[in-house]
Amino acid sequence: MKALVYHGPGQKTLADMPKPVLQEATDAVVRILKTTICGTDLHILKGDVPTVKEGRILGHEGIGVIDTLGTSVTRFRVGDRVLISCITACGMCDLCRRGMCSHCAHGGWILGNTIDGTQAEFVRIPLADTSLHRLPAGADEEAMVMLSDILPTGYECGVLNGCVKPGDTVAIIGAGPIGLAALLTAQFYAPADIIMIDHDDHRLDVAKKLGATKLINNSDGKALTRTMAMTYGKGVDVAIEAVGLPDTFELCQVIIAVGGHIANVGVHGKSVPLHLETLWSQNITITTRLVDAVTTPLLLKTVMSGRLQPKQLITHRFPLSEVLSAYDTFGNAARERALKIILTNE
Amino acid sequence: MKALVYHGPGQKTLADMPKPVLQEATDAVVRILKTTICGTDLHILKGDVPTVKEGRILGHEGIGVIDTLGTSVTRFRVGDRVLISCITACGMCDLCRRGMCSHCAHGGWILGNTIDGTQAEFVRIPLADTSLHRLPAGADEEAMVMLSDILPTGYECGVLNGCVKPGDTVAIIGAGPIGLAALLTAQFYAPADIIMIDHDDHRLDVAKKLGATKLINNSDGKALTRTMAMTYGKGVDVAIEAVGLPDTFELCQVIIAVGGHIANVGVHGKSVPLHLETLWSQNITITTRLVDAVTTPLLLKTVMSGRLQPKQLITHRFPLSEVLSAYDTFGNAARERALKIILTNE
Amino acid sequence: MKALVYHGPGQKTLADMPKPVLQEATDAVVRILKTTICGTDLHILKGDVPTVKEGRILGHEGIGVIDTLGTSVTRFRVGDRVLISCITACGMCDLCRRGMCSHCAHGGWILGNTIDGTQAEFVRIPLADTSLHRLPAGADEEAMVMLSDILPTGYECGVLNGCVKPGDTVAIIGAGPIGLAALLTAQFYAPADIIMIDHDDHRLDVAKKLGATKLINNSDGKALTRTMAMTYGKGVDVAIEAVGLPDTFELCQVIIAVGGHIANVGVHGKSVPLHLETLWSQNITITTRLVDAVTTPLLLKTVMSGRLQPKQLITHRFPLSEVLSAYDTFGNAARERALKIILTNE
Amino acid sequence: MKALVYHGPGQKTLADMPKPVLQEATDAVVRILKTTICGTDLHILKGDVPTVKEGRILGHEGIGVIDTLGTSVTRFRVGDRVLISCITACGMCDLCRRGMCSHCAHGGWILGNTIDGTQAEFVRIPLADTSLHRLPAGADEEAMVMLSDILPTGYECGVLNGCVKPGDTVAIIGAGPIGLAALLTAQFYAPADIIMIDHDDHRLDVAKKLGATKLINNSDGKALTRTMAMTYGKGVDVAIEAVGLPDTFELCQVIIAVGGHIANVGVHGKSVPLHLETLWSQNITITTRLVDAVTTPLLLKTVMSGRLQPKQLITHRFPLSEVLSAYDTFGNAARERALKIILTNE
Repeated sequence: MKALVYHGPGQKTLADMPKPVLQEATDAVVRILKTTICGTDLHILKGDVPTVKEGRILGHEGIGVIDTLGTSVTRFRVGDRVLISCITACGMCDLCRRGMCSHCAHGGWILGNTIDGTQAEFVRIPLADTSLHRLPAGADEEAMVMLSDILPTGYECGVLNGCVKPGDTVAIIGAGPIGLAALLTAQFYAPADIIMIDHDDHRLDVAKKLGATKLINNSDGKALTRTMAMTYGKGVDVAIEAVGLPDTFELCQVIIAVGGHIANVGVHGKSVPLHLETLWSQNITITTRLVDAVTTPLLLKTVMSGRLQPKQLITHRFPLSEVLSAYDTFGNAARERALKIILTNE
Repeated sequence: MKALVYHGPGQKTLADMPKPVLQEATDAVVRILKTTICGTDLHILKGDVPTVKEGRILGHEGIGVIDTLGTSVTRFRVGDRVLISCITACGMCDLCRRGMCSHCAHGGWILGNTIDGTQAEFVRIPLADTSLHRLPAGADEEAMVMLSDILPTGYECGVLNGCVKPGDTVAIIGAGPIGLAALLTAQFYAPADIIMIDHDDHRLDVAKKLGATKLINNSDGKALTRTMAMTYGKGVDVAIEAVGLPDTFELCQVIIAVGGHIANVGVHGKSVPLHLETLWSQNITITTRLVDAVTTPLLLKTVMSGRLQPKQLITHRFPLSEVLSAYDTFGNAARERALKIILTNE
Repeated sequence: MKALVYHGPGQKTLADMPKPVLQEATDAVVRILKTTICGTDLHILKGDVPTVKEGRILGHEGIGVIDTLGTSVTRFRVGDRVLISCITACGMCDLCRRGMCSHCAHGGWILGNTIDGTQAEFVRIPLADTSLHRLPAGADEEAMVMLSDILPTGYECGVLNGCVKPGDTVAIIGAGPIGLAALLTAQFYAPADIIMIDHDDHRLDVAKKLGATKLINNSDGKALTRTMAMTYGKGVDVAIEAVGLPDTFELCQVIIAVGGHIANVGVHGKSVPLHLETLWSQNITITTRLVDAVTTPLLLKTVMSGRLQPKQLITHRFPLSEVLSAYDTFGNAARERALKIILTNE
Repeated sequence: MKALVYHGPGQKTLADMPKPVLQEATDAVVRILKTTICGTDLHILKGDVPTVKEGRILGHEGIGVIDTLGTSVTRFRVGDRVLISCITACGMCDLCRRGMCSHCAHGGWILGNTIDGTQAEFVRIPLADTSLHRLPAGADEEAMVMLSDILPTGYECGVLNGCVKPGDTVAIIGAGPIGLAALLTAQFYAPADIIMIDHDDHRLDVAKKLGATKLINNSDGKALTRTMAMTYGKGVDVAIEAVGLPDTFELCQVIIAVGGHIANVGVHGKSVPLHLETLWSQNITITTRLVDAVTTPLLLKTVMSGRLQPKQLITHRFPLSEVLSAYDTFGNAARERALKIILTNE
């Protein structure tokens, strides 16, 4: 089968690989219908994720059809259309029971990381009963792909951890796909204002269409002053960091109001100064989280009811056979005005 | 001054009454700009509320301008435009500290009940610092009147107590002003479906315009069957009772899903059978609440940001001098297609 | 093997039954070490639980040793000592994911109800991975039996649903094993006072030893007056109903303070008047719940740390071969001063 | 009157000062019965708190008797015995309404900071109605002094913000008075283990008597290794930082388990590296808080019920006239084995 294979930093090919087979009774093999590329895949290609070895098929998002099933899988049948969660979960270990499937003793984020992933014609999904979701009848396939990772990540790590509530002023730093996913799901809670902060005017325009009430292009480094002006000097109730750099996390610390929540979503490569000399008395909460994907059923319901329309994040479409072009486009997101790209296994 | 005075069951007049004066240093006298009539006022007129004595000026909602101020009031100045909360609160007693201002040791619901109310040219407001809210610049006066009682009641007693959350199926029984206030504020939390149940097609039409996704006219008594069909036999996650009769509370008990919340908003005059023989094992939560009006600042923010548009509930307008006609209209709400009526002190 | 078999209302025998065998790949067969009798078993014997058919082996509590394992079970090995949860759970269905394993689509309370139970030498446990807990090294076996049902029931349905918090005044109505389990676990939250209400002085004495701060023998029907005197007329913050009769639920409604929680634990056979005519405005929360047994891991930790000592509930011990005598003793609990009885499979 | 006066860094005297008088109608003047010295007072004397000007009477804790009352004060009478909260609160501003009285628009921590404090024969208390608590009949005066600051600080900033729950493993870094206050109140929630970490064996001995289950003297810098050994490599569920130094905050970051809470209580003078490069994916919550003193009524109930015995923190007693000796003792806390010191105004 065709698959996108990682060969070490900077190296990837569209290669012929053997079709995956069942290894455990709890496995399923899924024929991919649609998949996508995540910012994390670009990190892997830079060599930033040492758990990914050469020869690995990338990808941890997608929808597909059950091709073969291990004997212990009870919830699915061959032919079922399914949503693949980026988080593989046993549902039984202490951490799964506490809702922290991201740290499942037998799973977590393993797809396209420690085992082969979804940018391929077929993928093996371990612990299938608790790592797949049946697609409802009538579900839009492209919208569903957004539920594998990006929507639960923006919602759980950004909106839920940030405790967004009616009347709040929310700042989202970073208008990439994850920041926009936080923007879409923040609106579940009727905040009074959502201030979107980025360097790219196009992405800010998109944010406005998706519900941001105020925009700040921080190319001139004046986001602090502007945020304070917009909030009458009080700062924001919730700051969602969706970039992963020291500067943006520092910005969160200076724009946060007394009693506010800083919800980190970004993947950070180094430490950041925490200004306890001022924040110790400011009743601040800071959270970090790897997506647990425990809200996927809830998000499915909001998509099926029309309250959430994640298809708005899709800007480009390619057949799986052109995955290398898709990576080029996604790798030059600003120039290409790319957000999420759908890859179809035709 | 002119005022609507209660003279015992079935008896009311528009009378000349002395303008109220300060009695305590914490009082304010407010000149009414706009007020309204509440369903509770009709209950009083039927003689159902024994705490209301003959000679009482009715009304517990409205906005106005500070006319005179007691020496201890610190947060307001003469001439400030203010929102009058239906709940008078000291902010200091044990219950106020716990957020239960409805049971404030020195206040609670007293306006138009144990002291004279707002359907008059002037009203005395005790504990003014903690019982009034300053109107923001640019606030729409009619929208603000809805924040005295009806919006916080629908939101606190219905939506917050019902724990509405994204993806939920919510049933609201009763499409009167309070049920519609619950409908408007339930949408803060992105439920998948809101089923509105009433006997009046006109009110159901209004509910549809205000965001209900499904309607049931229960004139034929088939609400149970229909709700179950709409929910694939599961029942609803949240049932908000906004009527106050045994039948409607019984309906809540049979349409509620396992793990669901029944939030009572209605004012009940008699006991209702609680079906513990079936519900004991169904992980149900039932709540009651008199509005505490602790969410008024939050609701103010959502109105000012445009997320909440309570003016949609207003159907009729009268000058205060025609308050008797206003009562006629409100007392024949179905025939007159009346929801909330604005009375203006011109 | 020997087993206690139900033969219809009033009929039971200690019979020779075939040893259970694996039916599904997710099953385990467990050799019972210790089991016990629950109040529910007495209800079954009265014929009150129609789901229990003639020929059923009773019992839903116990600890044992894994005897044989289905091929899909991954968390246990033959020879492991395990705690059997009274709730069988798949861990995958919508309700399990929401923490409501009591209503698991493939399990729930089925042991000694719709399938054979634990009052036998061996028992088949479906969905073993998510329905058994490994006993920690050094665990006291008798204490562990109390974690099958009674402790999670008192804790989840009574204490957690009742939202007991530091400084609260808690009333527990019913000093039987479940009420005492609520008493033990209520102390996790440092309430100021726990008032125990029962008709039996011996049980009240036990309650005092286990941490109750005030006792009311309600044989004279004066519990209301006495509770009000003890609480300076305010009533209690939390009322835990651990009996299951209309009178005791009515008592909860009159002793509850403004803003209080009534947590129903009792199994009710008929409806109870709910006094909405007074409670509608009292900010009350009423909850029902079948134990979900989701707190068993937490309770295990508290037992192993010595914070919780459930062995205090054990009053009698019998070999499994004398299970009929054990039923006699438990069936005459007041006369025999019986609380929980340990049955050992020697 | 006699009072302890600050005259700039390193300078203090026991001076004769004018007795305070009412300035606002909401003031009370309180005759001090007992007061104490806080670690913050030592910080002030080092010149670390620039808001404190020369000539200021220090102290923000104590109990006393109402001496004179402003005309607007409604809840107290002359002669009432009262507990002085370290937080002065109006109860009306947005932040007070949200429970953040530490940032009250008209109060906050002002006693012994921006206005004269309690280490004197008399003190003026602004906003008396919402900043004082009546002492219950029979209250132990020394125990009550502990409720002015140290107990609510340990409880709110450490235990509540840390979300301590039954079965948890909690580490408290710093066994000074605040850390010990966190230790006492953490036990409200039945954690399985409380590990106390300090450099001083005497303080660790005290911690053991007050309920710590494990002790680590970190003089050798091996707290990380030992904590991991005690927790089977998992780390702690809650880490309470009660020191205020970079090293101790760094320790919290390495001993915290996946999903854990770091509750900062310490007053920090400089920034600390936040290790987002490892923590970004660890589902960690970090909180900061200045005590809001909103739990004082709850703590009063737990003291009166005997569940909390804060007198255990008192090691020394002096008359107010020997306040300079008291400062010497408290300033050499390790050598003097001093925790809290009671100063009595005889």
